[in-house]
Amino acid sequence: MKKIVVGQSGGPTSVINSSVAGVYKKAKELGVEKVYGMVYGIEGFLEENFIDLDDYLSNNDNYELLKRTPSAFLGSCRYKLPKIDGNEDVYEKIFSILDKYEIDAFFYIGGNDSMDTIKMLSDYASSHNKKQLFMGVPKTIDNDLPITDHCPGYGSCAKYIATSLKEIIRDNASFSKNRLTVCIVEIMGRHAGWLTAAAALAKDDTCEGVDAIYLPEVVFDVDKFIENIKTLSETKSSIVIAVSEGIQTSDSKFVCELGSEDRAVDAFGHKQLSGTASTLANIVAKETGFKTRAIEFSTLQRAASHIASLTDINEAELVGEKAVEEASNGNTSMMVTLNRSDDNGYNCTTSVYDIHNIANVEKKVPLEWIDNENHQMKEEFIKYAKPLIIGELQPIFKDGLPVHLIR
Amino acid sequence: MKKIVVGQSGGPTSVINSSVAGVYKKAKELGVEKVYGMVYGIEGFLEENFIDLDDYLSNNDNYELLKRTPSAFLGSCRYKLPKIDGNEDVYEKIFSILDKYEIDAFFYIGGNDSMDTIKMLSDYASSHNKKQLFMGVPKTIDNDLPITDHCPGYGSCAKYIATSLKEIIRDNASFSKNRLTVCIVEIMGRHAGWLTAAAALAKDDTCEGVDAIYLPEVVFDVDKFIENIKTLSETKSSIVIAVSEGIQTSDSKFVCELGSEDRAVDAFGHKQLSGTASTLANIVAKETGFKTRAIEFSTLQRAASHIASLTDINEAELVGEKAVEEASNGNTSMMVTLNRSDDNGYNCTTSVYDIHNIANVEKKVPLEWIDNENHQMKEEFIKYAKPLIIGELQPIFKDGLPVHLIR
Repeated sequence: MKKIVVGQSGGPTSVINSSVAGVYKKAKELGVEKVYGMVYGIEGFLEENFIDLDDYLSNNDNYELLKRTPSAFLGSCRYKLPKIDGNEDVYEKIFSILDKYEIDAFFYIGGNDSMDTIKMLSDYASSHNKKQLFMGVPKTIDNDLPITDHCPGYGSCAKYIATSLKEIIRDNASFSKNRLTVCIVEIMGRHAGWLTAAAALAKDDTCEGVDAIYLPEVVFDVDKFIENIKTLSETKSSIVIAVSEGIQTSDSKFVCELGSEDRAVDAFGHKQLSGTASTLANIVAKETGFKTRAIEFSTLQRAASHIASLTDINEAELVGEKAVEEASNGNTSMMVTLNRSDDNGYNCTTSVYDIHNIANVEKKVPLEWIDNENHQMKEEFIKYAKPLIIGELQPIFKDGLPVHLIR
Repeated sequence: MKKIVVGQSGGPTSVINSSVAGVYKKAKELGVEKVYGMVYGIEGFLEENFIDLDDYLSNNDNYELLKRTPSAFLGSCRYKLPKIDGNEDVYEKIFSILDKYEIDAFFYIGGNDSMDTIKMLSDYASSHNKKQLFMGVPKTIDNDLPITDHCPGYGSCAKYIATSLKEIIRDNASFSKNRLTVCIVEIMGRHAGWLTAAAALAKDDTCEGVDAIYLPEVVFDVDKFIENIKTLSETKSSIVIAVSEGIQTSDSKFVCELGSEDRAVDAFGHKQLSGTASTLANIVAKETGFKTRAIEFSTLQRAASHIASLTDINEAELVGEKAVEEASNGNTSMMVTLNRSDDNGYNCTTSVYDIHNIANVEKKVPLEWIDNENHQMKEEFIKYAKPLIIGELQPIFKDGLPVHLIR
């Protein structure tokens, strides 16, 4: 491989840039001449909007800063490739650009939708006798990619959620029982409850944890929810509850839709969700008379690199390196996966897997890990998630604020 | 002084516990036998709900943990003392408890409403020939206490706001101009815009900063706001705007009231505010067709001790120490103030001031520090606020999460 290109796609994470760092690092180790970054993913690629990563990352200080920089350094997109049949012009354009820049391999860092891009491009290459290689690098706070044990981005988001909940739980408990506040915290995750489940990690020696957790994997019953709060209020002076933005009632309505009917739809046809916590807070206030508070972690949870997990940063770098290593061996149409071994404490290695078994498949939280009766996560989940939030990479501060690397 | 009592009141901050630490430290230095903590402020005091701080803080590790623990370690309250005339029974009860426990001095860590408590108690002591001393220790994220240069709690909240905005601004800029998102971030501060003004600190070498800042000190005009966004959209591919929860239109309506009419009222008769950002995001989406996002920092901004300002932590400890030192000299009916000197870089000393000039007075952002035309803060504000966010006190992590001290 002489020249390669790397892009970022979909929603950013705190560590998505560590995967760019890993791709660059391994490529340079292997003697790759040129590492292009596509600005704004495949959308920017189509406009030949490239940068030369040497201009930013040949300096080791910048490399270290990149690993501490949130959001997509290269810019991202939500562009879905059309089906090949009837849209050959789009694909021909992509391959003509690859040819023009003499690019041998294409690396795409992203989640389910982005892995579909890798699948489509490698399918086209295969059926049209193109020589370029296509590798997927996993990234999603949602942790919903199949095959891989977990996804880079998840650990840092989980760490932010657990840290913030510990702080919120303390804040909410400031006042005595005669000022009971029910605090409902909304966490990202449309269909898979991995992030909401991470609320369970807040419980430790110095924190009683959240009082209930509601995942999208389980049908949400508003009446039972109110009953649970009433029961909790009999013994507690502070109630904090974690809910997924994606919880649905038995008639498949999102809870946030109970508040208003019209919701926008994003480029992939997903409904825009928000307001689950505030919808529930309003219902609880009305039904119980308790003071309520709604908190939405919103984009903070995926952007708070100042409290990122070092384990996650390292693994994000590792999957980037692995993708380049595999491509240099001629592999294509694959996504890098993380494989866990718990033999001597937590240990993680990488391998690759056929992209066709990965693209567009969503991995949900196993139902047997959910304690439905107590609305908590079982020990299996804690054991799974806890190692992923370990370690810190102290930000580089200047004048009291973390420094980032900018394009 | 042989025995003293300390309490925390009002909304918590990231550093309110450092003031408890300071009170304890100085008291022990001065040979005070017993330092009681009132649990849930004056409300708990009236129920004789006390703890002995030796049980927690004689251990130095715990002392260090306390400085890293958010929210009110002792518990807080929002209890407003009634006027003395006609309510002598309440005051007699308080002084009988002080006598019973042989308490010589009463320290109250809080904001405007809490300083009123100190004023009332010291007035009663003065008019009824009581010997106990009453000292106020400033604390409020709102930074709206008069006389003192700034208030402990503000710096850490400002640091959280600036850090999170840097991350949000990057996140919001992930996508290209054809996916322009207008992100509206709501910041606490009912009447004083100090916290919202701190959004201006996000701008530095690696961040372009927020595109506009709207403080409650300036009348808010919805039409001009929409116009500003339309103008910004002509040149920008990402727009992030900071608004105070307390912004009001020319007819003195809170912006969040434009969405719904009924708002609850808290124990002090303040209207409960929330939803300013989401109200505005809905209006912007409707008027411009742009994708919008509303983010509310909510209690996270006052509880995020993991990113607290070391300057703020140290000053919070200092005002606690100073209060005890002054009381040991027989001073009463005072609040500790912070005095800035910029002669050789930022430097801060403490003194005390008559509580009667402080209680119930709200200090707002000087209008001459606000650049109304560009909706930004002028250099005078930056110079004022920047030193307050400097320095970090790394949390003590266990299993990936910050450890706190619990009662």
